[in-house]
Amino acid sequence: MADFIIGIDGGGTSCRAAVADPQGTILGRGKSGSANILTDPNSAIQSIGEAAEAAFRDARLPVGEVRNAAAFLGLAGTNVGNLTQYVRERLPFRHTDIDSDGLIALQGAIGDAEGSVAILGTGTIFMARKDSKVHYIGGWGFTIGDLGGGARLGHALLQEALLAHDGIRQGSTVTDAVLNEFRHDPTAMVEFARLSKPGDFGRYAPLVFQHAEQEDPGALALLGQAARSVNEALDAITRIGGHERLCLLGGLAPLYPAWLEPRHRKILVAPQADALAGAVALAAKRHQARAGGAA
Amino acid sequence: MADFIIGIDGGGTSCRAAVADPQGTILGRGKSGSANILTDPNSAIQSIGEAAEAAFRDARLPVGEVRNAAAFLGLAGTNVGNLTQYVRERLPFRHTDIDSDGLIALQGAIGDAEGSVAILGTGTIFMARKDSKVHYIGGWGFTIGDLGGGARLGHALLQEALLAHDGIRQGSTVTDAVLNEFRHDPTAMVEFARLSKPGDFGRYAPLVFQHAEQEDPGALALLGQAARSVNEALDAITRIGGHERLCLLGGLAPLYPAWLEPRHRKILVAPQADALAGAVALAAKRHQARAGGAA
Repeated sequence: MADFIIGIDGGGTSCRAAVADPQGTILGRGKSGSANILTDPNSAIQSIGEAAEAAFRDARLPVGEVRNAAAFLGLAGTNVGNLTQYVRERLPFRHTDIDSDGLIALQGAIGDAEGSVAILGTGTIFMARKDSKVHYIGGWGFTIGDLGGGARLGHALLQEALLAHDGIRQGSTVTDAVLNEFRHDPTAMVEFARLSKPGDFGRYAPLVFQHAEQEDPGALALLGQAARSVNEALDAITRIGGHERLCLLGGLAPLYPAWLEPRHRKILVAPQADALAGAVALAAKRHQARAGGAA
Repeated sequence: MADFIIGIDGGGTSCRAAVADPQGTILGRGKSGSANILTDPNSAIQSIGEAAEAAFRDARLPVGEVRNAAAFLGLAGTNVGNLTQYVRERLPFRHTDIDSDGLIALQGAIGDAEGSVAILGTGTIFMARKDSKVHYIGGWGFTIGDLGGGARLGHALLQEALLAHDGIRQGSTVTDAVLNEFRHDPTAMVEFARLSKPGDFGRYAPLVFQHAEQEDPGALALLGQAARSVNEALDAITRIGGHERLCLLGGLAPLYPAWLEPRHRKILVAPQADALAGAVALAAKRHQARAGGAA
């Protein structure tokens, strides 16, 4: 029987951990480097261990107790089955449950309730809980998915600026801003785009929101298209999760509400807690289920 | 004074050459491998030499005469200045002129006339000749350009199929065809897309035209958007090249006319000749200019 539980929120930028008592009361938090199991599983394993130890130190608990803990990990890239298995076998915890980063975000945002959650960041993913089952829509990545996400929106802005440069479409202040940044050199834009990762495109997304607020027609058209994609996906996810609550997460969550359909806006709720708290809550649930099973 | 002239049409798939007398009458043709100066300039140099020698053999001319010839090369990727210089210095011809693959296509298509030419293939580029000057619009490649090209159209189809799979948008027979091909496995589609080059996406473009002809609503929407992009670019290029003649080239040229605006359709003309013939014609012009200058 584990004495402590651990929640882990592992992503490509950093790995966060929290240690809690078996009831889920958080005692300490820790942070470490990237935990991307797809690009570097061994580094991810190390980061997860480091974040957990940091949380124990933060709680003034003996670091050796990490080995007796029961951990719940929400990780990006868990749809690749073998890697999850590989990582689980090499982690130091007594019990290790691994699920998606989306699931811990949903748990944090709406707790045990039914409803829908949309993560609107560089990419987009839509989740709903109905009858205790969690459903996922989207989240397929930049290449042919993630419509409405920051990367696709920034990409669309660069494309529009190039069309304006060529005189194919009318420019506006938002495309002027981009063209000025690239000194009106289309080859520089094309080269930037060719080397860009989704996050690089995503850095242009706030520019679209800013200019749309000032009613720039170019920005309004781009954002209109992105918001249409988000509205369609929200229609699909609320058909599953119902029309009681919808929670937006991610970097664009504060920016999008004004551009969404009233049917979605009116059911928006603030997140109850973050993904790390969601991981702790799920760790506590699994711990209690095991205790119940053992009783 | 060169005895023979050579036209070269060099692209990523193959390199074609024609040897002609100084008046431009073609005497023989040759072909060799890829001549992509961007990805492999040394292989391109070799392919160009091989194609020229093959043309001389085809004409039953001594291959050693290649060194006395005046060549005009239309090559993809010539907007990168240093590479053109590098290639020119290493070619065996007495005189070497290098310009874009677009220019020789335009010369072949409309000869010395004023007018516009659109290459609608995997990518798209629009050209016009006005007052002896050639103007270019587009042709920036797949990442943020080439709207209306086969790669962008195929990409849009895969994206639409994924939206249909997720229940975000209504599917139709064209998205069903794609989903069936991937056995309704979204991860297989995403993985295919992630590894795809523009030509891989482009192979799905004919499917859109086929289903649009059968009035499939999904295909009509995708093709409508692509045709809108092409119509806009044609508006821009005919503002420069005038409204007398417009010539479509490239793999999608036979498919697009029915979907273009009547103002563009009514000025369509068939190409006079191909890009290789255009290269020979330009080689003859340069040759005569040098002869005139020397006289």
